[in-house]
Parts: sequence; C-alpha cells; structure tokens
Amino acid sequence: MSDVKTRIDQTLAIALKHAQGGDCPPRLAEAVEYAVFPGGARVRPQLCLAVAGACGARDSRVPLAAAAAIELMHCASLVHDDLPCFDNAPIRRGKPSVHATYGERLAVLAGDALIVLAFETLVREIETAPKAVTECLRILGRGVGMPHGISAGQAWECEPQVPLREYHQAKTGALFAAASMAGAAAVGEDIEPWRDLGQRLGEAYQVADDLQDVAGNAEKLGKPIAQDVRLGRPSAVSSDGIRGATEKLQRLVTLAVESIPDCPGATELRLLIALEAKRFVPESLAQHVA
Amino acid sequence: MSDVKTRIDQTLAIALKHAQGGDCPPRLAEAVEYAVFPGGARVRPQLCLAVAGACGARDSRVPLAAAAAIELMHCASLVHDDLPCFDNAPIRRGKPSVHATYGERLAVLAGDALIVLAFETLVREIETAPKAVTECLRILGRGVGMPHGISAGQAWECEPQVPLREYHQAKTGALFAAASMAGAAAVGEDIEPWRDLGQRLGEAYQVADDLQDVAGNAEKLGKPIAQDVRLGRPSAVSSDGIRGATEKLQRLVTLAVESIPDCPGATELRLLIALEAKRFVPESLAQHVA
Repeated sequence: MSDVKTRIDQTLAIALKHAQGGDCPPRLAEAVEYAVFPGGARVRPQLCLAVAGACGARDSRVPLAAAAAIELMHCASLVHDDLPCFDNAPIRRGKPSVHATYGERLAVLAGDALIVLAFETLVREIETAPKAVTECLRILGRGVGMPHGISAGQAWECEPQVPLREYHQAKTGALFAAASMAGAAAVGEDIEPWRDLGQRLGEAYQVADDLQDVAGNAEKLGKPIAQDVRLGRPSAVSSDGIRGATEKLQRLVTLAVESIPDCPGATELRLLIALEAKRFVPESLAQHVA
Repeated sequence: MSDVKTRIDQTLAIALKHAQGGDCPPRLAEAVEYAVFPGGARVRPQLCLAVAGACGARDSRVPLAAAAAIELMHCASLVHDDLPCFDNAPIRRGKPSVHATYGERLAVLAGDALIVLAFETLVREIETAPKAVTECLRILGRGVGMPHGISAGQAWECEPQVPLREYHQAKTGALFAAASMAGAAAVGEDIEPWRDLGQRLGEAYQVADDLQDVAGNAEKLGKPIAQDVRLGRPSAVSSDGIRGATEKLQRLVTLAVESIPDCPGATELRLLIALEAKRFVPESLAQHVA
C-alpha cells in the first residue's frame, strides 16, 4: 500500500475510534468499521491530498482531515446506495455489502452515522486553521447535500426524466470536485481554479464505472457487473455505445489534466493524474485508449 | 401558532430554500419539504431557544440556526425511523409518511440530505460567532452520531440485549440534551450545567411516547398507536407498567425542572418547562399526574 493510502487509513481509523468509544452499540460499531475497512482505491482522499501537496501544503493535519471526511462520505453513500431499495447489491469491495452482513436497519444507521462522523472529523481540526476548515466544511456540505451534491445525484434516479449530464455531475462529479477543492481549501488556496479537475475526473470515473459495468471483471471489481443494465439506469454506455463512452472517458481525462492551474507542484500532479486515470479503463477496452 | 414557532418555521424555510435551489431534482426537493412542513410540536428547537433566552441571548441568529439544525436532525431521524425496515410507519404527523408518499429511495436520500443541511445551516452562521457556532457543531455531532447520539440510540434496537437506560438516553435524550446545550452554547455560556435539563426532558418525552403508544389517541397523535407492542420494542410501559411509567415520567420532569442552573431567566424557564411537560401526558392518564 502506498504511503499516502496508509496515512489516509490511519486518519480514518482514528476518526472511527472516536465514534466507537464509550457505550456504543457493538453491532453499529462493527458495521461502520466494516463499511470503511478494508477500503477501495481511496481515489477521492488521494486526490484531495495530491491537490494539497501540489499547492505546497506544509502541515498535513487539515488536508488529512478533509481527505478522511470526503472518504467517510463516500463510504456512507456506498452503504446507502447498496440498500435493497436502490441497487440491492449483495457484494461491495469484494465482500458481502453492509446490509447483507448487518441487515438493512444497521446499514441505514451506519450510513447516517458516517455522514455525521465526516463533519465531526473536520470540526475536530477547526482550531488548527479556522478559516481553512470552515471552507472545507462548506465544500463538504455542497458535495454531498442538496441541490447538487451526491445525494441529489442519486435522487435523479427517482425522476421520470433524467438529464444525464446533471446526473453524472452530481452523482459522482460533486464529491470528486469537493475532494479537489477541499485539498486547495485545506492549505488556504482559492478553490474555484480546482473545481474543474475534480468535476472532470468525477465524470470520467462515472463513465469508467458505466464501462466496467458492461466490460469489467466482477471479481476484480469487487461488485456484480451489469447492474446498470439490470436496473435500467441511465448510463454513458447505453447513450453513447462502448466506443463512444471510451472516447468520452479519454476526453474527460485530458480536460482534467489541462485544467490543473499553475502551482508549485503542477507538473507532477498532471503526470500523476494522467497515470492514475489509465487505471479507470477496463483491461478489455485498454487498446481503444492510446 | 406561537411567535417562537413561527420564527423556527421561518428559519427552517430559509434553510430549505438554500437546499432546493438550482437544478435540484424536483421530487427530492418536494420530499425534504414534506418531511419538515408542517411540523410537529417543534419541542426540541423551542427548548433550544428557551435556554438561549433564559441565558440572556441578545441576538437570535445563532440560537435560531442551532434550533433549526436540531429540528432538521429530528426530521431526518423521523424519516429514517419510519422506513419499512424500522417501524414501517404509514402515517407521521397526521399524514402519509415520507416513504409512503415518495417511496423508500427518496426517503433514504431525504433523510441523508437533511442531516447534511443541519450542519450547513450552522456553518452558514460561523462568521457571526465562530466559537459559539463551533461549539454548536460539536454538540450537534455528538447528539446525532456515535457513540451516544440518536443514531446509536436507534441502533440499540438491533442488539440482542438492550440496556433500557442507554437506549432511551441515546434514542431521545441525546437530541434533547443537544438542544438545551446548544441553546447555552449559542450565547457563549458553559454547556455542561444545561446537559441534565435536556437529558431528563428527553427521557421523560420517551416515557411519554411509550405511554402514548398504549394509551394515546391515534388521530391526535398523528401516527399509529401500539407500534412498540407490535414491533416488540423495549418500552418503559412493558418494563414498569402504565402506573410505574407514569410515575417515572413525573419524576423525570421534576428532575429536569430542578436541574435548571441559575441564570437571568431561570424562574420563567422553570415555569415554562413544568407547564409544557404536562402536555406530554396522554389525557386518559392525566389524573395520575397531579
């Protein structure tokens, strides 16, 4: 595991310890831990820390808190999205989903508790850098709440008409944009120049997810494939075809890389993003993406 | 409607407007509004404002934001508690519950969005009084999160052994305690002397709820009665009987009133709490409570 992932996981573990203390109901304490560990790729918190690093972060306390808060929100959204009323997903990150293991009630509550814990994790650092943390709290709220955060994105699935762009921007783009902007905010930089990086990467990630859904390998992916098709959900593949979606993915990654503003570590960050984004593409489609 | 309730509702309406703007999915925007309006008794935000007033609040912006945040959390918990996997409640506040009206998926998302909105509503006032709002954010997190907030309280229902005191303290007491402490914090007062008031009132309210469940009037209550019995849930009535529970309720209200610390408006607050608490008791049992 990379050094960065280790530090993210350590920060998440400390956040969970605060939540699990005292007379916490034991099964809830277990369920939130199960939802957070072992993690997936930790893409969003890594993006947050990469932006903070490129901006020249000297102290990593606030960036790490922001990164952990973003990941806790992501874990919460996975737990709720997997519920029987949504995807009814039996598998997540290569093991039975939270509701499959702990039941629906604890899955609802674990998701709720993780949302709260995300805010608490940031608030805990507020004295370290009041303005930076306040900005991160605002970004976090906008990234997950209404009208344009990931909960709104998920809610587009409950509308009779789904505008694909708004749906993808909110469902996935919003938390990626929050990750890149929180990285900048955590070190006191302007956030707007960093919005596009996260937004484009998030859209790319969603297109990649749609592609994985038809062309991926279930075992490697850690979740069932062809869920979107089965659930009749809007997808870049159903609207643009596999080739169209693959081209779109490539275009979005290019836009993401080009959007990176001048900063002390811009060159390294551009390289890192381009490299990491290659992993988005299912192996069976890799030849389409030069 | 009392002047205080009107101001709470106005603050809630403004908070919702922030959430519903832009390209918000229309049904989610409707569902959150439906979950918050028309309200119930707004007991928790009224407690918050009453404490702030008794402490000598001069400006009501932060107390109102804290009160609204507490009520948004309460509404979120009702929406999630009513879900089929918990109470499967068809009726809430005298009308079909959120999931009965908008479906389970929008009920899960509306609850999530309301939790986020509660934090956002407080963060929006942080420049007004940074220390006071930060303290309110901490109180809010503890009141709803893990290990002792209302999500943990609800999670006790998923344990094989339920310690009744911890269950009631967390499930209902925690948000009442948050309400009274946030009222003090919002005006920069010490919060610990105010914990007992909310905690005792919350426990009293939960016992009253258990009594309503067996002795209440479904129409007046706005939700079905005998749910606890039907769901085999821990209840003060099943453990102490109707008379025992009624005596316990009276004892808790007395303890609550006696706990009010010296402050500019202590006398009025003691009177107000004693009067308001009488409404907790189902009419058919009122003769037991002198």
